Amino acid sequence: MSEITNIEDTTICACSTGNCSGAVAVIRISGPRTVDIVSKVFKPKRDADITKVPGYTLLYGYVYRQDGTLLDDVLVSIFKAPHSYTGEDAAEISCHGSNYIVRELLTMLADNGAKYAAGGDFTKRAFLNGKMDLAQAEAVCDLISSETKAAHDVAMQQMRGGFSKELEAMRTNLLQIVSLLELELDFSDEDVQFADRKELQKLLDDSCTQINSLISSFKLGNAIKNGVPVAIVGATNTGKSTLLNALLKEDRAIVSSIAGTTRDTIEDVMNLDGVLFRFIDTAGIRSTLEQIELMGIERTFYKIRQASIVLMMLDSTEPDKFQESISSLSKKINNAEQTLFILLNKCDKVSKPKESGPSLFDASELVEQVRALATEAGLSPSAILPISARQKVGLDVLESMLVASQKDISAPGNMVLVSNMRHYTALKDAYNALLRANVALGENVSTDLVAQDIRESLYSIGTIVGAVSTDEILGNIFKNFCIGK
Amino acid sequence: MSEITNIEDTTICACSTGNCSGAVAVIRISGPRTVDIVSKVFKPKRDADITKVPGYTLLYGYVYRQDGTLLDDVLVSIFKAPHSYTGEDAAEISCHGSNYIVRELLTMLADNGAKYAAGGDFTKRAFLNGKMDLAQAEAVCDLISSETKAAHDVAMQQMRGGFSKELEAMRTNLLQIVSLLELELDFSDEDVQFADRKELQKLLDDSCTQINSLISSFKLGNAIKNGVPVAIVGATNTGKSTLLNALLKEDRAIVSSIAGTTRDTIEDVMNLDGVLFRFIDTAGIRSTLEQIELMGIERTFYKIRQASIVLMMLDSTEPDKFQESISSLSKKINNAEQTLFILLNKCDKVSKPKESGPSLFDASELVEQVRALATEAGLSPSAILPISARQKVGLDVLESMLVASQKDISAPGNMVLVSNMRHYTALKDAYNALLRANVALGENVSTDLVAQDIRESLYSIGTIVGAVSTDEILGNIFKNFCIGK
Repeated sequence: MSEITNIEDTTICACSTGNCSGAVAVIRISGPRTVDIVSKVFKPKRDADITKVPGYTLLYGYVYRQDGTLLDDVLVSIFKAPHSYTGEDAAEISCHGSNYIVRELLTMLADNGAKYAAGGDFTKRAFLNGKMDLAQAEAVCDLISSETKAAHDVAMQQMRGGFSKELEAMRTNLLQIVSLLELELDFSDEDVQFADRKELQKLLDDSCTQINSLISSFKLGNAIKNGVPVAIVGATNTGKSTLLNALLKEDRAIVSSIAGTTRDTIEDVMNLDGVLFRFIDTAGIRSTLEQIELMGIERTFYKIRQASIVLMMLDSTEPDKFQESISSLSKKINNAEQTLFILLNKCDKVSKPKESGPSLFDASELVEQVRALATEAGLSPSAILPISARQKVGLDVLESMLVASQKDISAPGNMVLVSNMRHYTALKDAYNALLRANVALGENVSTDLVAQDIRESLYSIGTIVGAVSTDEILGNIFKNFCIGK
Repeated sequence: MSEITNIEDTTICACSTGNCSGAVAVIRISGPRTVDIVSKVFKPKRDADITKVPGYTLLYGYVYRQDGTLLDDVLVSIFKAPHSYTGEDAAEISCHGSNYIVRELLTMLADNGAKYAAGGDFTKRAFLNGKMDLAQAEAVCDLISSETKAAHDVAMQQMRGGFSKELEAMRTNLLQIVSLLELELDFSDEDVQFADRKELQKLLDDSCTQINSLISSFKLGNAIKNGVPVAIVGATNTGKSTLLNALLKEDRAIVSSIAGTTRDTIEDVMNLDGVLFRFIDTAGIRSTLEQIELMGIERTFYKIRQASIVLMMLDSTEPDKFQESISSLSKKINNAEQTLFILLNKCDKVSKPKESGPSLFDASELVEQVRALATEAGLSPSAILPISARQKVGLDVLESMLVASQKDISAPGNMVLVSNMRHYTALKDAYNALLRANVALGENVSTDLVAQDIRESLYSIGTIVGAVSTDEILGNIFKNFCIGK
């Protein structure tokens, strides 16, 4: 028998239940030889000929090694093309979750002609067999890694085709425009205009607005998927890393009293009450800003610009430095779009804890001083909180304020949110091409150039759902998938 | 509706595929309300009434939240009592392996009346419903954690009932003896002997031999299940911890040049070529043995006694200490039962590496010196190897020698091996009771005392398969199980 090499002809196998051992492991097999290969290693308890059973058959039975010894008792689900996840003949073997058994069983399947699947191979087949488009396939990966309801809903909406449908409507629209324009080109000798230029302009404007609204949704979509970015900023040695560790409930950042311990930005996500936050510890901003140091903390400023929420840390024990800190940071914060919390850290050293109340430190004088300085610097902080990151005092108040500030973060109803950087980039490309077409149309540039721009826009949109795709695009997408999906 | 409290009436649920996220997660449900509860959260794609489908039905469909939004698309397997793992009505929901989905789905099942299962709850039900005995249930846990073929085969043999069958035969035997004896007691006034004393003695002897052979198998069974114990011993600062780390391919032990860094024994397992080894790093034995220090290293001596293989480390740079080390350790090693390797460590500092060959250091003089000292001390090492733990030279030779020394370690054919400490203890109890009975019989002690001893032996054997069991025994056994099994 000749070696099977075509993807379409190969049968693949992988463990789909992750690497850690559990009670049960599921091994997935897909491809034309699925039933044949499974029948070589699996004997049903009741004498059934598994090569003849219909799809959606569930069988109990035994896996024997080559030498006739028993490897495991298992459940086997058989699926027949096209009614399976991949659209091919497929099977799932549910065995005891032992690493040894999984390893042996995969080896036995390979010995009988199955290939080990690479990450995302099953979903890639589902895409290639037309069971889902590319955006839906990517959503499978997002769905699996979603940790909050909002992230889940965005991924589910995308997986169920909500996003694809919107893009499809847009493509149909643009295709209609471009075919009208190209019809004109066919009759270019006769100098006719099939398409009313005003009408075209309106259609293009509508498409631009539509794409732009998708592009704008990325900020929310990305925050939902990757966490609301919260930058922790302040002068050196104000306790930023201590706060990060306290918020993450672990020792993520190296903390020391040596100013400048945090050299690079450190970030990690935390699910607070169903909202995912991405906390970003930044290098401390030194009060004397030499040229070289400015370059070093440029990265911090970049992170500040990207943040939705800024936590400005002040050291309560050094009130004489408040003004300088606030005024230098105020230039970097866009308080109209960013939520600002000012944290008076190390309050345990300057103030006694209160018996109760929303803030546990009685630091009203300091708070008022800071409020005046903030107003002077043109900032309107959502709150000024006396805390102690080291003693973990006041952090619960901060956490509930953070959650409250994002209470509306959710995938709103049926609205489609873009949450994938690849889609975002493609949409921007599509938008820019449409803008060019729109301008060209207004300036009476020749029809074929306008059509060319719209074609480019269509191409970019097409890459999202995979209407156009290359091996390279597919490779890049599926390499991020886990094995077995 | 009144609260359901009886175990038999409750329906339990748990995720059976471990804690790390994979492509697929399997949620298992078992109990009388299984189908009812599943029907509350799951809608099949094709309108099937899942309360009416037969066992071994596989359905594709959707899980909707209370508010009607889609949580996931899933596969559901339905099993009907008694044809399920637990012997009850049961179901498995195969969903996307997202932590969020798993959490939500479990919550929905709980909201509809399912209880979260504790570790081993499903297997416990399988035991309580007579699907397996206690030894078989324990083997399920061993099977899942088995990492080598030998460990798998021991667990599989036990799970398939090989061990139980052997115990059952033994129990039948003993029950026959005891009922004969008790028949005599019923007619004790008449002073008859139904049972020939010689015959009884032989039956008891046979049972003793049989139990003893099971007890003896524990050494092998335990080595297969928990790893062949390899003690790394030697004077302080000979590089024992460095060797452990090199063998485990990680930084398991803290290494420093300060003598006595390893204060307690550190052990971890490593699968070398299909054989599981348990390497045990011990505290260094100091050359001056004061009373207090003796107590401190008593633990090391205990570990040496338990080891199947002893790796004696010598520091090549200090040949004047060879004699003292060898002679003091020789008293602790039972070379008749233990395999001994002497390792000349730090050879990179005293010898040049050879171009090739089985040993990579040319240290034949040192080796000969050690061989003479070993012989003098009454030891016959299997090999004397020049190595460098730090440079990782010579370790591949050591590893293959270790594997070769255990080449026969396997569950031999159909032979039953005891691998469980609880069984081992119960068998020892049973054995001791039988010995007492045997002696009593020889000494013509009154029949009822003999019968009492045999009853005790029967009781101990009965605890193994769970013929007699208490909540406490069950609790102790199943607390070690993973959740979802």
